[in-house]
Amino acid sequence: MAQKYATREEDYSKWYNDLVYRADLAEHSDVRGCMVIKPYGYAIWEKMREILDVKFKETGHSNAYFPLFIPKSYLSKEASHVDGFAKECAVVTHYRLKNAEDGSGVVVDPESKLEEELIVRPTSETIIWNSYKNWIQSYRDLPILINQWANVVRWEMKTRLFLRTTEFLWQEGHTAHATKQEAIAETEQMLNVYADFAENYMAMPVIKGRKTANERFAGADDTLCIEAMMQDGKALQAGTSHFLGQNFAKAFEVKFADKEGKLEYVWATSWGVSTRLMGALIMTHSDDEGLVLPPALAPIQVVAVPIYRSQEELDAITTKINEIAGKLKSKGISFKYDNDDNRRPGWKFAEYEAKGVPVRIAMGPRDLENGKAEVARRDTKTKEVVDFEGLDLYIEQLLNDIQSNLLNKAKAFRQENTKAIDSYDVFKIEIEKGGFFLAHWDGTSETEDKIKEETKATIRCIPFDIPAEEGVCMVTGKPSKGRVIFAKAY
Amino acid sequence: MAQKYATREEDYSKWYNDLVYRADLAEHSDVRGCMVIKPYGYAIWEKMREILDVKFKETGHSNAYFPLFIPKSYLSKEASHVDGFAKECAVVTHYRLKNAEDGSGVVVDPESKLEEELIVRPTSETIIWNSYKNWIQSYRDLPILINQWANVVRWEMKTRLFLRTTEFLWQEGHTAHATKQEAIAETEQMLNVYADFAENYMAMPVIKGRKTANERFAGADDTLCIEAMMQDGKALQAGTSHFLGQNFAKAFEVKFADKEGKLEYVWATSWGVSTRLMGALIMTHSDDEGLVLPPALAPIQVVAVPIYRSQEELDAITTKINEIAGKLKSKGISFKYDNDDNRRPGWKFAEYEAKGVPVRIAMGPRDLENGKAEVARRDTKTKEVVDFEGLDLYIEQLLNDIQSNLLNKAKAFRQENTKAIDSYDVFKIEIEKGGFFLAHWDGTSETEDKIKEETKATIRCIPFDIPAEEGVCMVTGKPSKGRVIFAKAY
Repeated sequence: MAQKYATREEDYSKWYNDLVYRADLAEHSDVRGCMVIKPYGYAIWEKMREILDVKFKETGHSNAYFPLFIPKSYLSKEASHVDGFAKECAVVTHYRLKNAEDGSGVVVDPESKLEEELIVRPTSETIIWNSYKNWIQSYRDLPILINQWANVVRWEMKTRLFLRTTEFLWQEGHTAHATKQEAIAETEQMLNVYADFAENYMAMPVIKGRKTANERFAGADDTLCIEAMMQDGKALQAGTSHFLGQNFAKAFEVKFADKEGKLEYVWATSWGVSTRLMGALIMTHSDDEGLVLPPALAPIQVVAVPIYRSQEELDAITTKINEIAGKLKSKGISFKYDNDDNRRPGWKFAEYEAKGVPVRIAMGPRDLENGKAEVARRDTKTKEVVDFEGLDLYIEQLLNDIQSNLLNKAKAFRQENTKAIDSYDVFKIEIEKGGFFLAHWDGTSETEDKIKEETKATIRCIPFDIPAEEGVCMVTGKPSKGRVIFAKAY
Repeated sequence: MAQKYATREEDYSKWYNDLVYRADLAEHSDVRGCMVIKPYGYAIWEKMREILDVKFKETGHSNAYFPLFIPKSYLSKEASHVDGFAKECAVVTHYRLKNAEDGSGVVVDPESKLEEELIVRPTSETIIWNSYKNWIQSYRDLPILINQWANVVRWEMKTRLFLRTTEFLWQEGHTAHATKQEAIAETEQMLNVYADFAENYMAMPVIKGRKTANERFAGADDTLCIEAMMQDGKALQAGTSHFLGQNFAKAFEVKFADKEGKLEYVWATSWGVSTRLMGALIMTHSDDEGLVLPPALAPIQVVAVPIYRSQEELDAITTKINEIAGKLKSKGISFKYDNDDNRRPGWKFAEYEAKGVPVRIAMGPRDLENGKAEVARRDTKTKEVVDFEGLDLYIEQLLNDIQSNLLNKAKAFRQENTKAIDSYDVFKIEIEKGGFFLAHWDGTSETEDKIKEETKATIRCIPFDIPAEEGVCMVTGKPSKGRVIFAKAY
């Protein structure tokens, strides 16, 4: 292990980037801002995807697929939407290359210029509502409950692996409803699905709340979000669920006949999470030795490493480990036996620590004699010597313990780093240390802008779950109906 | 059912298109050549995807994800590759829109022109081998066995739903090996995975073989394929597996140190199937009433329709059907109960026929009294009255029967429409009737081109599984070592 990796203390940002490489999750590609998601990283994303997909289907949604390209004119149809997305999009203008006349390679064939440019989707509201227009005539056609797993492109100027990339993978739900009430209920339901996923699978506590007008999705009447705290005290928006009102229905003229035959505009929602969750997962749990994964999302939950000198010793250990493996697999626990003879146990220990494998079993000839194995847990880095008898039950319980320990640890960290604050002067000092700050705000965009300009902090959300409390804005002294959460954010 | 649908006899091409709409599988979008895959169509694709994904993992592959965009210069690095793909690609030239000065909407910002244009991937060999270059140093880094599920874009001039669309969904496997032999074995293994999937899940018999040089993938040394016969006698290439030799390793300078420390170029394969399989599935089994689905790929395997006059009758039927549903679900059979009161049974029967649901249960008050239900199978359109006692076992067996009946029927059809032929004059007449023709060919591109020009037929493959037989080319009279398969193709 010749390479020196940054610790969180030394350089949090470099620590993150080093970790993504060291755990073999992803890497930068030669294409500006685009990443390659490597097999181990993709396996974690696949787990997230599978779990979420089941939850979407349980709540009545089906998957479908809409075109990658959006005609330029569609983007313009919803005024605030185009403002939000036009500045950062990949534009297809031609459809053919040809050999350069000087033999230097291929060039764009000017004769293949498109009449109307196509935008690589930054999000799909416009192309989808253009289809929904033809699918919806009557209240009987509603609701439409569709989700899409797709790649999207936003031309980001500053990119970071998983957190902000030009192309990323995500899911986007797009639903159509007969009533405002039903669309709002859908928006809330999907926020709860995300919050449940974050807490129970990612072991990442989140705060549910509403975005201010400044931070709302371009085209939404209301944006709900889940916000998580990273280990540097910064906030990360982990998922959003938008109540779109009738904005896209109006932009694309989508009306339905209600039971009385009256024509009404359709109500809409959209909601999404992306490969950004990978960044959130990494920064919530990991440490200076590498990735720490909650068992619910670990591609390998248990790894076993044999410690031996002779082939004979290895054979005896392997027999025992295969027996244990069988029991673990029958409990649905994913298991890897690393008997690669080219690597030493110490190297393997470091490798699986870097990759965040929750539980490691090590077994040598003496362990075998004693009928015991050494079981190490990744989260606390503690070890126990455990009898073969009941080892499978021990590990099953241990995985549950790790899962809940990670959530509790993250909750405690967030609690320690969340403060109520009433003085803007104190706020300006405290915000530099990181963390969430519960403060009164007068409800205006002007005050929010001023705070952002002066401190780089934004209102992460108007949280749902804190008691109402009247007060005065920490900046202007104007009345406030409750505290909101300020933080610097990814 | 006011709308009149084309029959296969009347207009095969219109029948296909009507069916895709009628079964609610997909539709054309406003974006040239791009389709919308609707929820029911996507559910079938999802099943295909899940089954194939398990098979890829069982054969040692992992999923990963590479960028959507390929720098123009990468395409040029492999000479025949660029020839094959440059003519039909979407080119990204700019990364920003701005408001038009005349207020008419948004226009491309000329200041956002890219230094090097990006191509929306038509296939990913170049971007992937550019990554592999950094991943491979020694024989220890090999093999690399990666698959990617992704969207790709080829700017097709004439498009048809599923069969040929500008954007389509697919999987592309890309593997890297230390030896030629190992890469060839991989190429063959994946062809067998595809053939197994086609026959055992799609119930679609396929012929495995090798493409001629004319029909080879741009950049491959050898292309293996599976070819299926559609009901109009045309061939459809359902999957390909390419032995790429060292072509991409040479283009991207990817070498590895072997056990003796000697630097060698890496050997490669790539292999893929796409949403085109949906078209193949439709055209293999469906009839004039709509889609016919093999049970292994049916999103709904069994639908139950109640026939009733009063709420009381409906309640009694529902109780019984729920009981049956429970038993079927415990056998892993997907079941839908359609008790929608807005639609009459006759409408529902036609609807589920159009959607290809393999088994339909109908139950009225008299059936309930008699302890029986009417069970209809979609493939043969026959019905049986079956006792409640053992109904679940009956249906389980019926689904198996339907699955094998569809395969056998398709095999018989192919056999009837496959002929050995020795006279080019007769060939020219027979080829117009459709079908596969086993004929001798002299092995030259010139003869192949001549046949294609004169008859529109191509050599689908040099089949693996027919006995060697010496003969003379039907066109030139020159010697031939064995018969090849000619057909017109999708």
